[in-house]
Amino acid sequence: ARPAVMPVAAVLPAGGSGERLGGATPKQFCAVQGRPLVSYTVRAMERISWISDIIVVVSPENVETMKSIIEKYGHKRVMIVKGGITRHRSIFNGLKVFAERESSNHLLQKPEVVIIHDAVRPFVEEDILSKVVMAAKEHGAAGAIRPLVSTVIASAADGCLDHSLERAKYRASEMPQAFLFDIIYKAYQQCTDYDLDYGTECLHLALKYCKTNAKLVEGTADLWKVTYKRDLYAAELIIKDNLSQQVYVITSVKEAVAQVGFFLQESLKSQIKVEAVSMCLSKNDSHLESIFSGQCYNFVCVNDKEYAIQDTEQLVDVLEKSDISLLYPVVLISVHLDVSENISFSIGMEELTRIKKFAREVKKKNILVYGLLIQYK
Amino acid sequence: ARPAVMPVAAVLPAGGSGERLGGATPKQFCAVQGRPLVSYTVRAMERISWISDIIVVVSPENVETMKSIIEKYGHKRVMIVKGGITRHRSIFNGLKVFAERESSNHLLQKPEVVIIHDAVRPFVEEDILSKVVMAAKEHGAAGAIRPLVSTVIASAADGCLDHSLERAKYRASEMPQAFLFDIIYKAYQQCTDYDLDYGTECLHLALKYCKTNAKLVEGTADLWKVTYKRDLYAAELIIKDNLSQQVYVITSVKEAVAQVGFFLQESLKSQIKVEAVSMCLSKNDSHLESIFSGQCYNFVCVNDKEYAIQDTEQLVDVLEKSDISLLYPVVLISVHLDVSENISFSIGMEELTRIKKFAREVKKKNILVYGLLIQYK
Repeated sequence: ARPAVMPVAAVLPAGGSGERLGGATPKQFCAVQGRPLVSYTVRAMERISWISDIIVVVSPENVETMKSIIEKYGHKRVMIVKGGITRHRSIFNGLKVFAERESSNHLLQKPEVVIIHDAVRPFVEEDILSKVVMAAKEHGAAGAIRPLVSTVIASAADGCLDHSLERAKYRASEMPQAFLFDIIYKAYQQCTDYDLDYGTECLHLALKYCKTNAKLVEGTADLWKVTYKRDLYAAELIIKDNLSQQVYVITSVKEAVAQVGFFLQESLKSQIKVEAVSMCLSKNDSHLESIFSGQCYNFVCVNDKEYAIQDTEQLVDVLEKSDISLLYPVVLISVHLDVSENISFSIGMEELTRIKKFAREVKKKNILVYGLLIQYK
Repeated sequence: ARPAVMPVAAVLPAGGSGERLGGATPKQFCAVQGRPLVSYTVRAMERISWISDIIVVVSPENVETMKSIIEKYGHKRVMIVKGGITRHRSIFNGLKVFAERESSNHLLQKPEVVIIHDAVRPFVEEDILSKVVMAAKEHGAAGAIRPLVSTVIASAADGCLDHSLERAKYRASEMPQAFLFDIIYKAYQQCTDYDLDYGTECLHLALKYCKTNAKLVEGTADLWKVTYKRDLYAAELIIKDNLSQQVYVITSVKEAVAQVGFFLQESLKSQIKVEAVSMCLSKNDSHLESIFSGQCYNFVCVNDKEYAIQDTEQLVDVLEKSDISLLYPVVLISVHLDVSENISFSIGMEELTRIKKFAREVKKKNILVYGLLIQYK
């Protein structure tokens, strides 16, 4: 669900010191599968076409680190803003680039709705972003919530239990949250220093200063925040899992070849998520581009042309342009199906030798190409 | 800190259905490094000598599964009890074996203090168990708490934010908890069906029915509960980490050999936790047994005797008796230091051949023995 056409921006506070992680590196800059956590979160925002600007707020000492991350991973539509000493002050700084000329070189277009999302919640999906944005447009503010995992209790001054809350009546407030820009900006302008220094909850500011009762949206378990070292472990394995859970089978529209794709899908679908598409590769198909800009990193391309390498080259070209291989290695298995009556073994081998050479080249671009030749009568 | 001599028992509710995990297997029975989660938690209790009985409460359909886990991993002092349809009913059933003759074949000794701990919190340490037990003895009830990770909010009937709680004033109630047996048992006897069916918090029952304000004890981050699939991932990597983070260097008391152990410790200690001990292996040292019953799975044994295999055999014998290899593979590197003037190469090789043969035998017992021969003048 794509929100109706309106300017939407995102602010990602990434200024935390990560003291709960027990390490020197703030958790948003910790490497997960070799890549800083914040880069995954930026990517999660970036792949959503209707988010126009992404403001990453980092503490002044991490501006250079963040710059190099943006460059290395080819992030687009991202602006770095220096944070304040608390979470709220950082978010406020992030919002200012849309409203105050002096806070950035060029004033960005003021969004109608602004998303606020933690840099340490990398697994945010378009669905929940879309839901909070739509709800914010209607209610002025909205935020993702989750059921409480533990009972919440209040302690008395003597360190003993005062009372426990009935778990069913309360929820954990998570991210993403979204606001009409004018509401959250007004709330930050009006709130006290005490709020800015000790508060943590944006929904609370919108309620207190703008009388806006945020719409609460049930989120999925993916929304959790990387807080402890164990969360980094979990993030690592979730990413590994995601990388290997889906494959696209691409075939030409020719009936015999399309059928092979269908059979392959049927036999794989109990083990892995498989999408099969038939398309005419010679046309510059925009459908192909949309596939490649998604979250899939594994492709099987089946064809029966004599010189399949042209198709493979074309696919790699689209893959490269899509930038997905900047994040993870992409695997492309090029299957050449030879069903001709007069099979020439040497032509097939020649083809494979070419593919091998081509594969060596594109490996540098993080695209792993494998050739498979199947001959049958 | 060992609590003063008094009977202490533990009840582990393990009856959850694991619906939040999104899998068919309840999380307490999910395999982590090949072994069911509940077995780690039982082990965490079992290694504490002052806990006399461990009651594991499982749903009726899992009694056989739990029996086979106890047998396979050699758990001791464990009794299985059939749970009820809710968490509170299960815990109550667990407590009954100490108070009602009909609920078990033989009545167990009623403990003064009973620990209640979730089967899905495997990383509980003796320190926090000891603290909650001592606090329960003094206050009647005690429970581990942790800071809140997210803000807690109350929603209104229309699904909008009603108010948010000030995070600093509240805590997450975690496990372990401990109670004077008579207090928690009385609370369960008096509480309503509504409590038993919809409540989740034992501290709340003690407060409501026995006017006992539980002492709250700050716990470590390790106490978290395996709730989602990502938590299983995290548990997996934490266990891997634990396995490789400590090594014991054991040397004979002879000065030259003890010095090698000291040097080894010095050079390793920046990378791994190293403990070095010198001891006379020929005496049946109880110190050795206490080392082996700990949480260490890696041992380097340095000696300079002509026939080192006797020492190695003795070490393996103690390791076997300690049962630690039931949980994880134990690695023992037997280093034979030959500093004699007239070195005989053949004797050294003969020794290594023997160790090799011995290693093959004990590998079946999950103990991996490696021999290393160092000759120098």
